[in-house]
Amino acid sequence: MEKFIAKKVTLMGPGPTQVYPSVLESLSMGTIGHLDPQFIQMMDEVKEMLHGAFQTKNTLTMVVSAPGSAGMETCFVNLVEDGDKVIICQNGVFGGRMKENVERYGGVAVMVEDDWGTSISLDKAQAAIDANPDAKIFAFVHAETSTGVLSDAEALCKMAKDAGMLTIMDAVTSLGGLPVKIDEWGVDAVYSGSQKCLACVPGLSPISLSPAAVAKIEARTSKVKSWFMDLNLVMAYWGGTGKRSYHHTAPVNALFGLHEALRLFTNEGADAVFARHLACHERLKAGLTELGLTFFVAESDRLPQCNVINIPEGVDDLELRTKLLNDHQLEIGGGLGPMAGKIWRIGLMGGSATEENVDKCLAALKAELAPVTA
Amino acid sequence: MEKFIAKKVTLMGPGPTQVYPSVLESLSMGTIGHLDPQFIQMMDEVKEMLHGAFQTKNTLTMVVSAPGSAGMETCFVNLVEDGDKVIICQNGVFGGRMKENVERYGGVAVMVEDDWGTSISLDKAQAAIDANPDAKIFAFVHAETSTGVLSDAEALCKMAKDAGMLTIMDAVTSLGGLPVKIDEWGVDAVYSGSQKCLACVPGLSPISLSPAAVAKIEARTSKVKSWFMDLNLVMAYWGGTGKRSYHHTAPVNALFGLHEALRLFTNEGADAVFARHLACHERLKAGLTELGLTFFVAESDRLPQCNVINIPEGVDDLELRTKLLNDHQLEIGGGLGPMAGKIWRIGLMGGSATEENVDKCLAALKAELAPVTA
Repeated sequence: MEKFIAKKVTLMGPGPTQVYPSVLESLSMGTIGHLDPQFIQMMDEVKEMLHGAFQTKNTLTMVVSAPGSAGMETCFVNLVEDGDKVIICQNGVFGGRMKENVERYGGVAVMVEDDWGTSISLDKAQAAIDANPDAKIFAFVHAETSTGVLSDAEALCKMAKDAGMLTIMDAVTSLGGLPVKIDEWGVDAVYSGSQKCLACVPGLSPISLSPAAVAKIEARTSKVKSWFMDLNLVMAYWGGTGKRSYHHTAPVNALFGLHEALRLFTNEGADAVFARHLACHERLKAGLTELGLTFFVAESDRLPQCNVINIPEGVDDLELRTKLLNDHQLEIGGGLGPMAGKIWRIGLMGGSATEENVDKCLAALKAELAPVTA
Repeated sequence: MEKFIAKKVTLMGPGPTQVYPSVLESLSMGTIGHLDPQFIQMMDEVKEMLHGAFQTKNTLTMVVSAPGSAGMETCFVNLVEDGDKVIICQNGVFGGRMKENVERYGGVAVMVEDDWGTSISLDKAQAAIDANPDAKIFAFVHAETSTGVLSDAEALCKMAKDAGMLTIMDAVTSLGGLPVKIDEWGVDAVYSGSQKCLACVPGLSPISLSPAAVAKIEARTSKVKSWFMDLNLVMAYWGGTGKRSYHHTAPVNALFGLHEALRLFTNEGADAVFARHLACHERLKAGLTELGLTFFVAESDRLPQCNVINIPEGVDDLELRTKLLNDHQLEIGGGLGPMAGKIWRIGLMGGSATEENVDKCLAALKAELAPVTA
């Protein structure tokens, strides 16, 4: 077998994104033990930086040793008990995945459906809360990666908290690209992914749970339906106090990478990072408009870091993306599920959010679209 | 925040082990998309090499995007349905974890207990099989990492298969260090870890399931109690035939590393790798004996790659291991659970199985033990 050498690609899809070079460097440091004191200290620093990124003081702030989907599952499997009613707002693929989670753990999902491409309707959410006062949990996606839509997390959390419900928020695509204010908004459980705006490699999921969420987990009358994701057990390893005890072998090198990614985020400063994402979005928007391309999402609901545009008539989705990949070493994303063939998703996340990348993407699109749409 | 620089440590614990330098190099290649054709081709090669390492033709051979514990959970959560009786042989920590898995998914665990430090009793296993003809699954650990014990996988599988049961085998520490013959032995589900004898970084779990196991999963009357680990869904991404569809974002760079680790294993040749592990074990054994140290496990049951020795009287476990770590940059493992403070575990796995490392370990032990035991 030949050694695999990955050909360089500029990643401007919905994630994984361009990883910062020093993160890649950190990945390749010699592995150390998962109970080595120098590793434990590094984990403490990761936790400290996550407190900053999530804007929270939650003790239960840690990293799930698996991708964002497992972070989602960790939140749901710990918080949902048999028969628990969960209100889920769905305006894209990932709300549907929440439903799968709730039902597989014995919960009852009450779906609030919005059109894909629009933000979650506050009126519909309020109506669902009013109609289901017995719901224990209210769950929604902050930044829908499948459609490029931002929803009003603060308002949604307020409604749910006023009704005495716990809130679960998907921040996979928002964390590191937009303000995420866990404590101020009243989010009880949040999960994200390493491979989006934090510009680390895929495979890790930062999460944070409020004291109220921890209380619900501690008051469970049945065991969490997963050993790997049981926070009662995992916390003994990531926990703030006392002796660290072995739970599973942490993905040491991947965490080296996340430490570095969080360090770059912290040192650049959250506001500066958000401003960079926004400036790139504006530059991309101007260029796309010049090319005659239109956004799928209304201006008010758009995510700067995940630009979803309509595929022009007469253009073959896969053919064009293959050309971008092969001839321009550029990856943009296609649509998921019902959106396949209809939209493209251009990511400006972390390492891909640079003027140079925006210009590269615009030039490539121009070159490949001109002959087709002319 | 300062950049984290890991101090170099020679890893001779029970894993993570010394990672081959070219694996670390592969980790730091620029990330590519998880649906990029070059990545899909690399996944196919990983699968092909796993077929060799597991000695299987199973179509459902893939890598779980999380550590070995999640590989274990993937096997159990897919194969166990409510009420399914599962016979579990326990002769260490990891048999106990299997019980946690079975019960959390609604199964009924029938435990066959053996003393820690001995291999699984074939007589007891047969008696349990005879007493529980309604058991659907028979599960055991091939190489118990917590005690350094090898069990007779071939004989255990034969008994269970003769009784019409499916078999689940933990090969976390055996794969890549000892022959693992999935098809010949009749193992229906096996999971391993990347960070042991394959000498890759921690965080991935290679698994393989037989057609009979797949048939049981396909015949389930209830959904798998995990979305992230549902093999019906994951297989659409890792699947052998047809179009790859998105399930979750694979840990791209970690898989670069695993590809390289499997390539080194394949190119060195399984038999040569096993012989290297064995030769290092013999060299270590001779040296330990010279130092007056004794093995916890009878010679016939010992794992060459995980040498478990009794801590000499009068020696403080943690103090000595801290000295090894700080003054010799050497990590060996302590005991888990009831074995804590009683044993050390010296790993000779993949990259740590070299004469140089054996000699380094012996010299360090000699230097630190002499003043204490003199």
